[in-house]
Amino acid sequence: MGMVGGGKDAFIGAIHRHAAGIDGMIELVCGALSINPEVAVESGKSLFLAEDRIYLNFEEMITKEAALPADKRMDFVTIVTPNFAHFAPAMLAMDHGFHVVIEKPIAFTLDEAKQLKQKQEETGMILCLTHTYSGYPLVKQAKQMVKEGAFGKIRKVWVEYPQGWLSKLSEREGNAQAAWRTDPKRSGKSGCMGDIGTHAAHLAEYITGLKITHMCADLNIMVEGRMLDDDGNVLLKLEGGAAGVLMASQVAAGEENALKIRVYGELGGLEWAQHEPNTLLVKWLDQPTQILRAGGNYGGRLSSFATHNSRTPGGHPEGYLEAFANIYKNFALTLGAKMDGTVPSAEMLDFPGVEDGIRGMAFIDNVVLSSQSEQKWTPHSV
Amino acid sequence: MGMVGGGKDAFIGAIHRHAAGIDGMIELVCGALSINPEVAVESGKSLFLAEDRIYLNFEEMITKEAALPADKRMDFVTIVTPNFAHFAPAMLAMDHGFHVVIEKPIAFTLDEAKQLKQKQEETGMILCLTHTYSGYPLVKQAKQMVKEGAFGKIRKVWVEYPQGWLSKLSEREGNAQAAWRTDPKRSGKSGCMGDIGTHAAHLAEYITGLKITHMCADLNIMVEGRMLDDDGNVLLKLEGGAAGVLMASQVAAGEENALKIRVYGELGGLEWAQHEPNTLLVKWLDQPTQILRAGGNYGGRLSSFATHNSRTPGGHPEGYLEAFANIYKNFALTLGAKMDGTVPSAEMLDFPGVEDGIRGMAFIDNVVLSSQSEQKWTPHSV
Amino acid sequence: MGMVGGGKDAFIGAIHRHAAGIDGMIELVCGALSINPEVAVESGKSLFLAEDRIYLNFEEMITKEAALPADKRMDFVTIVTPNFAHFAPAMLAMDHGFHVVIEKPIAFTLDEAKQLKQKQEETGMILCLTHTYSGYPLVKQAKQMVKEGAFGKIRKVWVEYPQGWLSKLSEREGNAQAAWRTDPKRSGKSGCMGDIGTHAAHLAEYITGLKITHMCADLNIMVEGRMLDDDGNVLLKLEGGAAGVLMASQVAAGEENALKIRVYGELGGLEWAQHEPNTLLVKWLDQPTQILRAGGNYGGRLSSFATHNSRTPGGHPEGYLEAFANIYKNFALTLGAKMDGTVPSAEMLDFPGVEDGIRGMAFIDNVVLSSQSEQKWTPHSV
Amino acid sequence: MGMVGGGKDAFIGAIHRHAAGIDGMIELVCGALSINPEVAVESGKSLFLAEDRIYLNFEEMITKEAALPADKRMDFVTIVTPNFAHFAPAMLAMDHGFHVVIEKPIAFTLDEAKQLKQKQEETGMILCLTHTYSGYPLVKQAKQMVKEGAFGKIRKVWVEYPQGWLSKLSEREGNAQAAWRTDPKRSGKSGCMGDIGTHAAHLAEYITGLKITHMCADLNIMVEGRMLDDDGNVLLKLEGGAAGVLMASQVAAGEENALKIRVYGELGGLEWAQHEPNTLLVKWLDQPTQILRAGGNYGGRLSSFATHNSRTPGGHPEGYLEAFANIYKNFALTLGAKMDGTVPSAEMLDFPGVEDGIRGMAFIDNVVLSSQSEQKWTPHSV
Repeated sequence: MGMVGGGKDAFIGAIHRHAAGIDGMIELVCGALSINPEVAVESGKSLFLAEDRIYLNFEEMITKEAALPADKRMDFVTIVTPNFAHFAPAMLAMDHGFHVVIEKPIAFTLDEAKQLKQKQEETGMILCLTHTYSGYPLVKQAKQMVKEGAFGKIRKVWVEYPQGWLSKLSEREGNAQAAWRTDPKRSGKSGCMGDIGTHAAHLAEYITGLKITHMCADLNIMVEGRMLDDDGNVLLKLEGGAAGVLMASQVAAGEENALKIRVYGELGGLEWAQHEPNTLLVKWLDQPTQILRAGGNYGGRLSSFATHNSRTPGGHPEGYLEAFANIYKNFALTLGAKMDGTVPSAEMLDFPGVEDGIRGMAFIDNVVLSSQSEQKWTPHSV
Repeated sequence: MGMVGGGKDAFIGAIHRHAAGIDGMIELVCGALSINPEVAVESGKSLFLAEDRIYLNFEEMITKEAALPADKRMDFVTIVTPNFAHFAPAMLAMDHGFHVVIEKPIAFTLDEAKQLKQKQEETGMILCLTHTYSGYPLVKQAKQMVKEGAFGKIRKVWVEYPQGWLSKLSEREGNAQAAWRTDPKRSGKSGCMGDIGTHAAHLAEYITGLKITHMCADLNIMVEGRMLDDDGNVLLKLEGGAAGVLMASQVAAGEENALKIRVYGELGGLEWAQHEPNTLLVKWLDQPTQILRAGGNYGGRLSSFATHNSRTPGGHPEGYLEAFANIYKNFALTLGAKMDGTVPSAEMLDFPGVEDGIRGMAFIDNVVLSSQSEQKWTPHSV
Repeated sequence: MGMVGGGKDAFIGAIHRHAAGIDGMIELVCGALSINPEVAVESGKSLFLAEDRIYLNFEEMITKEAALPADKRMDFVTIVTPNFAHFAPAMLAMDHGFHVVIEKPIAFTLDEAKQLKQKQEETGMILCLTHTYSGYPLVKQAKQMVKEGAFGKIRKVWVEYPQGWLSKLSEREGNAQAAWRTDPKRSGKSGCMGDIGTHAAHLAEYITGLKITHMCADLNIMVEGRMLDDDGNVLLKLEGGAAGVLMASQVAAGEENALKIRVYGELGGLEWAQHEPNTLLVKWLDQPTQILRAGGNYGGRLSSFATHNSRTPGGHPEGYLEAFANIYKNFALTLGAKMDGTVPSAEMLDFPGVEDGIRGMAFIDNVVLSSQSEQKWTPHSV
Repeated sequence: MGMVGGGKDAFIGAIHRHAAGIDGMIELVCGALSINPEVAVESGKSLFLAEDRIYLNFEEMITKEAALPADKRMDFVTIVTPNFAHFAPAMLAMDHGFHVVIEKPIAFTLDEAKQLKQKQEETGMILCLTHTYSGYPLVKQAKQMVKEGAFGKIRKVWVEYPQGWLSKLSEREGNAQAAWRTDPKRSGKSGCMGDIGTHAAHLAEYITGLKITHMCADLNIMVEGRMLDDDGNVLLKLEGGAAGVLMASQVAAGEENALKIRVYGELGGLEWAQHEPNTLLVKWLDQPTQILRAGGNYGGRLSSFATHNSRTPGGHPEGYLEAFANIYKNFALTLGAKMDGTVPSAEMLDFPGVEDGIRGMAFIDNVVLSSQSEQKWTPHSV
């Protein structure tokens, strides 16, 4: 693995490295860790990289690594830069025969995302997008239960993602994370919806298997002086007649990262919250609610998609890094199968990719469009 | 207290009687408990009413009671009939000098509600509307904290009310509660929003002290064959720039009666759920979330509005009937003060009345109007 | 109902009145509410008692009421005085043909308790002991599930009752509740174990249907200057080889009234906590834990003992007063059946009585004995 | 890192590898992964070990690695064999200049543990014992709050560790984990107390900073045919007059791994449960309970010991592997400091070692002794 971005003080780069390290299948071998040369070098050293594989920019890294013998060069590139800087290294990497892992959102614009798809199809590379929350074992359990019809036809989806960390104008108070995420030039045309609303939308579509077809959005800037939305509520129509609500906020003062989803069908429903990710509540019309736990046994009744993505038995909680690691693990297993010429299992193939990235970018476009519209419903066309 | 409606097998009549009995201030002395004479008589006997005060209809009850000497007749009338039958007995009661308690919604139409207000103003009678959920001590605590500015300016309100009991077409399967609530002739122009959405709207306005100014509604009939909405999601604009969402559903399969509200301001937020009503989560920007408990001491820092409405010390949970009883208690204390010529305290006066009823009826009108509109926003005018 | 004790400022007397009022079957008609004549009179007036039925002591109340015509006099006496003053009025009441309800513990000594049993057998009166916690619907559900063998043979019982309100020497700071409860002359030979440990022991035996046979107790006085135990941990042996622990404390700083019980058998277990009394967790060896809710439907699978003791449908929480009211309701229904010459149902008869009182007094004796012993096990003989 | 034990199908070996991998500081370079040569080789290959560093037994591994140049050989040995096979490789490793990480319990007998201490002192090697639960950030927070006197003098400790996985005689049904853990020859003189009771005892002493001085144990064999205790309840006396209870069970049917601790002092208390390890409840006499969350900010008020051991911001849950990783991280940082000649910080040095191991072995001896005794109290002498 070679990393673009993620030098010291970056948040998500370290997360990627922790996650990639858990399963012992992936090693960081090189990096272009910062556009600041000093930071790049210092970060590379602190990560035990060989000095000649600490690069100063992604072009150098990709071209030099491509020039190494096949068994010496990195196998794939991980891109953890701010949103505006995803596209170029991803394109270049695929052009040079490297698979890519991209931190979400896939790109800066929908058009870029579509170009990435085209490139991926041309080159045959694998593109993995780290929509982390779909990596939790009980999210996969939820998806499988819906798919198998446990709840009948789905009628309702409520997904919410409250955070409170932008309750003040932190971008003016030296918070680097806040600074780029609230800056249209680096973050894109939406703040809250782009950053976390996309996660919520992805999770809703992932679990239900239904696509959002229409949106009615009310995006807000709650903190005076901010340039992008920091809050929003969206009514949803989904395929098959289901109705939903997506709520996301970065000014829900006192909330941490409280992603939660509830889905209801004709026969029952489910509830999952990222704060306590090892619990899935399963609700029924005429029976008591059940508490499903990750790593539980239940006489083998937990889905293979859940057990494949667990490392510990019930009661040994796994968390965010393990969910992240599942995406890396499945990407690596799929890559390994490709290298070995074997067929990866459905469980291995279950990681987000370019299609998820395109829908994510379209979500940002359409939710902004809808918020600006006086009409109630805006189609979620891609 | 004389009761109109609430014969055996009725749900809410028994709730009113339990609630009125808790504090030892109110006695059921007469009733017109059913339009079915046999049921009226049998129900009256089982409630230990004197035989000559078991009436066969509300007109008889009101006129005969009014003819009794002042110290022998009932003090007020409680109306627990289906929605369409609230108006007439309430008008007649006030005309005969009786105060009234009305089960929510106050009437069948907004126009009736306005007539009730006029009648109340003419007669000087007290009109109490049992919006139960505002009777919980920690709901009152929440209201006071917002009022005192603990959270700064309010930015967000999320209120939800999921139930699952109408997930099937129960109204065709002999469920009497379902039958009248899903019947436009007895329930009114909205099902879910009229029955429980109004509670959610009332709670949001009660706690925040802010009025909803605009709505964008998506009401649904999820169960084929039903005539009224059984589900709905509504975007809200509130006074002062706050944004919100109101979700209500009777097809959230597996949910009981899970009313919950979250409010966020500049400095913090609060969360209260009716399922565990003795807990109020209070959230802060830079301090740990606090768990406030009803009956808690906290060195006297709990609001007088909370303690006035608690009967037990912390750890002795109070519930729905006690919240209901608080409405009766405050109505009775206010009535007592009026009789004694004293001034009721602010705590006593804090029970829902005709204004809440008018806003509730307007909510039903406007939410239906909004759902039918292709425009995003519909004003919530009264 | 005539009440002995429970004048204004008393805690438990008001609780009894609230509870007795909920179901509309019981009316307070007279009282000897305080040994202080002024308080007795003032309290009686504020409770709307007829002036000639406000008595100044229990002897006067019992003898004068007994002299009234049968249809005019009270039906039973409720005794809510401090522990040392339960025995005399209970004996006198039964001697005069009155049934009795006694606040727990039944008496001051085991010997008194045994005399009450003898008196009850001689007179045929009904004696009801308000061990409140056995009145909760889901406690009854738990008992029935164990009885029906749902969990197989019971192996383990953990019952705990932490409170924090005696963490300081409050009895010296004007806290009247603390004063009598920590005073051996009014409370008896144990403080914490007598006050709340007995509730825990009762609950354990009630739910499991197994008697405690041996105890190994470690009682402590944690607050310097206190005269009775304010904390204690007890190992238990129960019939049939089950092992257990009973923990009770009044110096668990920050806890309210957190009674909780867990029971495990060969096939599963259960968990119930008084703070959230409408939830019963049911655990299984090879299936997910289930959340049973009071008032739930579950296709009729909730025990008749649970549904008989619920007033509201699921999601309308009932609490401590309702549990208390269930004891009064069942006592009243049993009394009514006796008066009518009918046979009360098993559900009606399920309220604590003199045998529970005797075991409670023996528990106090034996737990104190065990704590003083250097031997590990002390038999719990009655 | 070289690993002894932990071949495929072993549980804890994989856990160690996941944990060691998270922070990118430790690499598995060699192993003697099984006493079965085929398993050893196959396991080594699947872990990408160089073929010449896949050893067939620990003696071979230690002697051959010791013969390698200093910059080529492993830095330390991790021992993850069953309990009876901890001592020999640990002694040999230290004799050859290797630091050691040992899965708990440190040895098979107290005498072995004392020899390990002597060896460690002679050789100056670092010995780390993986009492995982002390690695959680909020456990460290709890310890620091107690140490700083936030709760005043500690009065009470309740620690419990219920599991249900040995509710049946699984050791006879092909469960390999169950087989060795219930076998006195491989596990030692206690089953449940040795396996999980030691964790509970360690946690209690770790958080409170108080040593257990006396125990009164009731150990049970609940499943017929089993040879070692599968359940036990223990009364505790701790230094300074605190009283406690330790409960551990492997027949608490339906429980996963529900380690939980509560500590109460004069001024407040705390509650932490391993199932939801990112939450610490902090309770106060006169203020609402606070919910401390791992990764929370709270204006810098979380202890440096908590933040040093967190990788993610609040709301990104960390779990068991991260707690485990903290022990490895601190061991590695201390080792690194030693190699660099710098002084490790107090936070780095905060990992369990040989003293914890000795107390753990003594706990097993004394709890078994106490259970066999008819005297109430047995001193916990080491």
